[in-house]
Amino acid sequence: MEPHITLLTLGVDDLERSKRFYRDGLGLPQHESPPGVAFFALHGTWLGLFPRSDLAHDAGVPADRHGFAGFSIAHNVASPDAVDGVLAEAVAAGARLVKAGRHAPWGGYSGYFEDPDGFLWEVAWNPDPEFGKS
Amino acid sequence: MEPHITLLTLGVDDLERSKRFYRDGLGLPQHESPPGVAFFALHGTWLGLFPRSDLAHDAGVPADRHGFAGFSIAHNVASPDAVDGVLAEAVAAGARLVKAGRHAPWGGYSGYFEDPDGFLWEVAWNPDPEFGKS
Repeated sequence: MEPHITLLTLGVDDLERSKRFYRDGLGLPQHESPPGVAFFALHGTWLGLFPRSDLAHDAGVPADRHGFAGFSIAHNVASPDAVDGVLAEAVAAGARLVKAGRHAPWGGYSGYFEDPDGFLWEVAWNPDPEFGKS
Repeated sequence: MEPHITLLTLGVDDLERSKRFYRDGLGLPQHESPPGVAFFALHGTWLGLFPRSDLAHDAGVPADRHGFAGFSIAHNVASPDAVDGVLAEAVAAGARLVKAGRHAPWGGYSGYFEDPDGFLWEVAWNPDPEFGKS
């Protein structure tokens, strides 16, 4: 396997609501997408939105879920102030602030928000300039 | 928000088991990592492994989960044969084959496997050479 993730697809309850959140609220660049799905052409791994029942059906797994989805998506920025700025931007776009920005035990500064489906985004500043360089 | 995902962190039940799967089984390049976490320096978005209870605690959310985690990670390759090859590599590394490689309604060829925690990976060939280019 080559060391690359092409696409991260979130299974969402309301595709239009999620498109508004990511495209209009957070300003991510939407790629040309067929009906019923939305792709965002990010630097590095792309982001996809797909109705969760369709995603489960595509993989052939049951669609039921309760509780913590068990993963987080990190978006690193250049300073602690920028962490607070992106958290505020997300809240303005309709996100729920889960954890306000604060200094972290690993030496950085980070906070968390949840998107409209409860998916966790960590917004972080890492003092190691090499971390996450692709 | 800049259009970039820095890190995708999977909350895992057994960190050593997951490190063996991704590092030794799938051959992903592990980055220098402090104890209790593992980072893989991929092209584009990096992959992280962190005990799920620690991840939930870090975000401040309950750690319970049942059912479909509600997302998938796609790994695109250059041909249908390469899809079958990566699926076989994953099964040899201990993955469960969820859906064997097959032609997809969108014109490509894809299959799914589950990692040791049940996280879904889609291995896909897409006839659009621009798809997922970062």
